[in-house]
Amino acid sequence: MESKKSPTTKRATGSKQASRRKFLATGAAAAALGAVQTTAVPAAGQTAAPETKSLSDLIAYGDRSEYVKSVRVAVDERPSPDEFGLTFHVLTPLQDSVGIITPSSLHFIGTHRGSIVPDIDPKQHRLLIHGMVDRPLEFSMDDLRRFPAVSRVHFIECLGNHSKAKDKTVQETHGLTSCSEWTGVLLSTLLKECGVQKGASWVVSEGAEEVKGAGSIRLAKAMDDCIAAYGQNGEAVRPQQGFPLRLVVPGFEGIYNTKWLRRIKVVDRYYMTYNDYGHISKDEEVAALTFQWGPKSVITFPSGGQTLPGPGVYQLTGLAWSGGGAVRRVEVSTDGGETWKDAEIRGGVHPKAHTRFGMDWKWDGRECVVVSRSTDELGQVQPSRAELAAFFKVPPDYYKTHGVQGSDNTIQPWRVESDGSVHNAI
Amino acid sequence: MESKKSPTTKRATGSKQASRRKFLATGAAAAALGAVQTTAVPAAGQTAAPETKSLSDLIAYGDRSEYVKSVRVAVDERPSPDEFGLTFHVLTPLQDSVGIITPSSLHFIGTHRGSIVPDIDPKQHRLLIHGMVDRPLEFSMDDLRRFPAVSRVHFIECLGNHSKAKDKTVQETHGLTSCSEWTGVLLSTLLKECGVQKGASWVVSEGAEEVKGAGSIRLAKAMDDCIAAYGQNGEAVRPQQGFPLRLVVPGFEGIYNTKWLRRIKVVDRYYMTYNDYGHISKDEEVAALTFQWGPKSVITFPSGGQTLPGPGVYQLTGLAWSGGGAVRRVEVSTDGGETWKDAEIRGGVHPKAHTRFGMDWKWDGRECVVVSRSTDELGQVQPSRAELAAFFKVPPDYYKTHGVQGSDNTIQPWRVESDGSVHNAI
Repeated sequence: MESKKSPTTKRATGSKQASRRKFLATGAAAAALGAVQTTAVPAAGQTAAPETKSLSDLIAYGDRSEYVKSVRVAVDERPSPDEFGLTFHVLTPLQDSVGIITPSSLHFIGTHRGSIVPDIDPKQHRLLIHGMVDRPLEFSMDDLRRFPAVSRVHFIECLGNHSKAKDKTVQETHGLTSCSEWTGVLLSTLLKECGVQKGASWVVSEGAEEVKGAGSIRLAKAMDDCIAAYGQNGEAVRPQQGFPLRLVVPGFEGIYNTKWLRRIKVVDRYYMTYNDYGHISKDEEVAALTFQWGPKSVITFPSGGQTLPGPGVYQLTGLAWSGGGAVRRVEVSTDGGETWKDAEIRGGVHPKAHTRFGMDWKWDGRECVVVSRSTDELGQVQPSRAELAAFFKVPPDYYKTHGVQGSDNTIQPWRVESDGSVHNAI
Repeated sequence: MESKKSPTTKRATGSKQASRRKFLATGAAAAALGAVQTTAVPAAGQTAAPETKSLSDLIAYGDRSEYVKSVRVAVDERPSPDEFGLTFHVLTPLQDSVGIITPSSLHFIGTHRGSIVPDIDPKQHRLLIHGMVDRPLEFSMDDLRRFPAVSRVHFIECLGNHSKAKDKTVQETHGLTSCSEWTGVLLSTLLKECGVQKGASWVVSEGAEEVKGAGSIRLAKAMDDCIAAYGQNGEAVRPQQGFPLRLVVPGFEGIYNTKWLRRIKVVDRYYMTYNDYGHISKDEEVAALTFQWGPKSVITFPSGGQTLPGPGVYQLTGLAWSGGGAVRRVEVSTDGGETWKDAEIRGGVHPKAHTRFGMDWKWDGRECVVVSRSTDELGQVQPSRAELAAFFKVPPDYYKTHGVQGSDNTIQPWRVESDGSVHNAI
């Protein structure tokens, strides 16, 4: 590591330097920056042809290492509770996540009753705001950029993010939540521009989906922290996330975060739309739970499918979030919930955003169950399945066998066996 | 937007549903999620073949819209001040940036005297810490994950990020800075594990580069906020950024952020290495400026090469950062520095990180010069070129014609012409 300015070294450098110059001059520079033979990672049951990236590609827009195999997987088809049929979902590999940002390429996808990703020319795209407003207005993407922008870190989580006993990994139990830095215009800014009329109380947002995905949120929420977002993690929103424009409704279920946003109607009542499978319920308590996510958390290491090589010190880590605001506390138990210890928050803390927690953990090699629970700034505490059962006055094991309907923010237990293997312990 | 549960709609859905099921069952599902015909964007002077992504690729790891053309560009070759020769740099398209995160695919690259990106198998990679320590230790990547992790947002900026009068765009003037959420182990944690001996005062870090890129930082900095980072923006550090391990030295020049980190030696003096082109200077004042970045900012809209379609209200926006800590204030002038107004901070504020600012700006259609200046938490204020000239006792226009040596954190002026075109106004 000492300075090595020997003549030999200098000559070698000079020589390399000359040949690099030639490479660049002739454009045959594939070796100069290191053209990488990337092998596309096939999804389950499919194969993909290897793909070679040219130097110009690697300069224009870089790629990840061929050694990194972390991929989303599709939930091909879920049995449908009603006539609405297929929902297509792609799960984020939370077991591989670090920090709080989900790479846009790994953000979960939920397409509901419509699985074509619209391929929209942003120059042609318009957002219409109409209904109970003084001035109905249509905005181009350039128009939107003339309004003050905000950039905020928020999670989006699909209502379908239920952990079931049959799920093996944290990708399967919790992979329908992701977190991004979203950039765009506050919806309140646009609504004020249009002038909301007296008597208006709800806002219906519609996207350019195959079946016109739409959702109704209260005007109070629309005027609070919703974002008409054109940016995600520093670049344009991805097509799978609603390019060129997505409504971000922080803390609310994914389905309200309308992708390919093209129309907002200000109205005086809840509009039942094609998206209302979960939100109309005879049981008012169930219905009331289906807008805003409660406090939630999950341990991503150790989690189902992972294996500990042996007893020793590990970093237990995971993610916590809440639709109610910022995470204030995360507790961890390594004895199945008998005793609890505060975990450390190890990253940025943002309202309605994934929050990374971690703690030193010495595993003694004996079977144990690890669980986490979060508390948000409203003082809400993440419940266990047994606590949820007590609340809804059903048998204690009810949610172990039936799963949780509506939004599932129950505590996730992972069992570490004495051989180091980790399993879902619902 | 009203509920459309007509029998016709239901039948149509049922039909699509059946055909989608078939698609998924046969694996011929290219149409189901929308297989995108992506066209790779060629770098200047080169062409790239179109590329088709399969559904399985799009599920595994998503891509950006084909309409989004924002790309890095290479500074092919810079005239070299000495015998060290070629440095290869790739510039981040800051003109297209939103928020504070730089997408990893668009992070700038600086390769200094060595332009091969090592393709390292993380299973084989080791970090050796030795020298003046009680216990020299070698860490595998798995070993590193057993230590507490931090996730922090920090910029990395190359010393070569000089704005020159000939540069046309903000990508050319300022594109050698980028900002990521970095995840890894504090270097202090690892050094404590090894036990730093009395008398040690410097730390030399070495990467697996062609010419063993290495840099010396003071032990005090190494024990402060440096990170041995394996994560970037929620996934593994990218190969072009040092996969599988990069030293992040927050606020210091890029060259100290050793990529492909494999060795750290604790020593009792500054080690002159192959990377010391800028840091050894006869002029002590110049040398003193070459570790930590001062407060800096640049307007990204409007910036060189952009065109305003006409008079009206725009969002003036840009990025500010400082090696001294968090940005506390950003001022903007639209009359070339005669009068100043505070801009709004529009995103997260992190120490030693890009910070997004913006303000409403009504352009009256007349020629003007827009500039920004930042103040950091230490009270340091970004200087103009004239102020820098006064400090170094050279003629007022010296740095306009000669450019700034060492780290250039001077104020960047953009001239908006009456036809709406924007130009570098150094």
